Amino acid sequence: MTERDLDSIKLRLRRFAEERDWDKFHSPKNLSMALIAEAAELVEHFQWLTEEQSHSLTADKLDEVAQELADIQIYLVRLADRLNVDLLQAVEKKLELNAEKYPAEKVRGSSKKYTEYQGDS
Amino acid sequence: MTERDLDSIKLRLRRFAEERDWDKFHSPKNLSMALIAEAAELVEHFQWLTEEQSHSLTADKLDEVAQELADIQIYLVRLADRLNVDLLQAVEKKLELNAEKYPAEKVRGSSKKYTEYQGDS
Amino acid sequence: MTERDLDSIKLRLRRFAEERDWDKFHSPKNLSMALIAEAAELVEHFQWLTEEQSHSLTADKLDEVAQELADIQIYLVRLADRLNVDLLQAVEKKLELNAEKYPAEKVRGSSKKYTEYQGDS
Amino acid sequence: MTERDLDSIKLRLRRFAEERDWDKFHSPKNLSMALIAEAAELVEHFQWLTEEQSHSLTADKLDEVAQELADIQIYLVRLADRLNVDLLQAVEKKLELNAEKYPAEKVRGSSKKYTEYQGDS
Repeated sequence: MTERDLDSIKLRLRRFAEERDWDKFHSPKNLSMALIAEAAELVEHFQWLTEEQSHSLTADKLDEVAQELADIQIYLVRLADRLNVDLLQAVEKKLELNAEKYPAEKVRGSSKKYTEYQGDS
Repeated sequence: MTERDLDSIKLRLRRFAEERDWDKFHSPKNLSMALIAEAAELVEHFQWLTEEQSHSLTADKLDEVAQELADIQIYLVRLADRLNVDLLQAVEKKLELNAEKYPAEKVRGSSKKYTEYQGDS
Repeated sequence: MTERDLDSIKLRLRRFAEERDWDKFHSPKNLSMALIAEAAELVEHFQWLTEEQSHSLTADKLDEVAQELADIQIYLVRLADRLNVDLLQAVEKKLELNAEKYPAEKVRGSSKKYTEYQGDS
Repeated sequence: MTERDLDSIKLRLRRFAEERDWDKFHSPKNLSMALIAEAAELVEHFQWLTEEQSHSLTADKLDEVAQELADIQIYLVRLADRLNVDLLQAVEKKLELNAEKYPAEKVRGSSKKYTEYQGDS
């Protein structure tokens, strides 16, 4: 894990952009656009599939989807870096918030309750 | 890092969903929708700012943005898990592909070249 | 229909922006971000529903969804105007292209074929 | 205008889907995904451009952008039809709401005020 974690990715993306003189394109605004464009490529893979079909992709399709997931992760790390946000710390904080916000005993199982709770977010 | 890495997040999200009986909502199709909805909340923060302004957010705004980044990371990990995709391995592979695809000496600095190269993706 | 068509909306949006001195925020880049943010609010309404549920919304929910549709239409007209694109003419052209691209006899019924054909686009 | 307005487009899209037996794919949920995927293709055209550059696209680029706008319009009309929403009536209502919500004399010119007001929405 030492070579592959988010910090290592962050540093490699920095070097990648520097070597290409791409920092000037990587404003947080622009990166947010690039990130959502990648998220949409993910959505495209699933838009005509049923939920059930979306669970059992062919190997080729899964490989394409994995690449989209990677693209999103890359832009996410890059954007967090450009904003000096510690991504894992932000996740940690959010997980704690979510645990308070959606107490298991209150929201269990019901889609309606789930949707309502989500609606607050 | 041992307690905070992506694998740990994955396991906590699994438990979180199980305790709430939410697995049934977490089809890859649905999760791709939730992910792009979070990406859009990020975009919303930046849509009326100039690129320059997007670099220097107020502390409050930055805190909100960090929460959106966390939400995206959370859904990304969850979606990868539901598809049995190793997210870090996918990133590794993508970084290698990008290094081949955008050789520094060929794409350096020019926005035009950058856009064209991006356009291939 | 004379008072409510897209041209009339275009003119009203122009006046609306002028009266508020908002033209400076309405670059095509920014408007594309605003548009996708609205599209995501639409997606959010459907993300935890089954396809079947998405056909039969409650009256309240439908009203909210109608507002999102309106927001998208508004930004779409505004963006087309800022780019001097004739939206209806563009649609006309696209419908003709689609008729050629997806001949009924070839793509009928099969989800697989549908997806493949979509994949070309 | 008689042949090209939104009602005419709606009817043509209905026939198009029927002839191809595609109604079964056109749940509101799926159409919301298709719509945001098209919105993202629009965003992609602008993501590495400055706001200024986004105002003055080349003819080729503008043609591509016009096609994305058309795709969004097409899915928007189709989705409204599947939900039995009168799109123009919804726009009418929204424009009236916006006029109340953003009184010209209060929000004029200031980006800060603009953003705050938008933030309410």
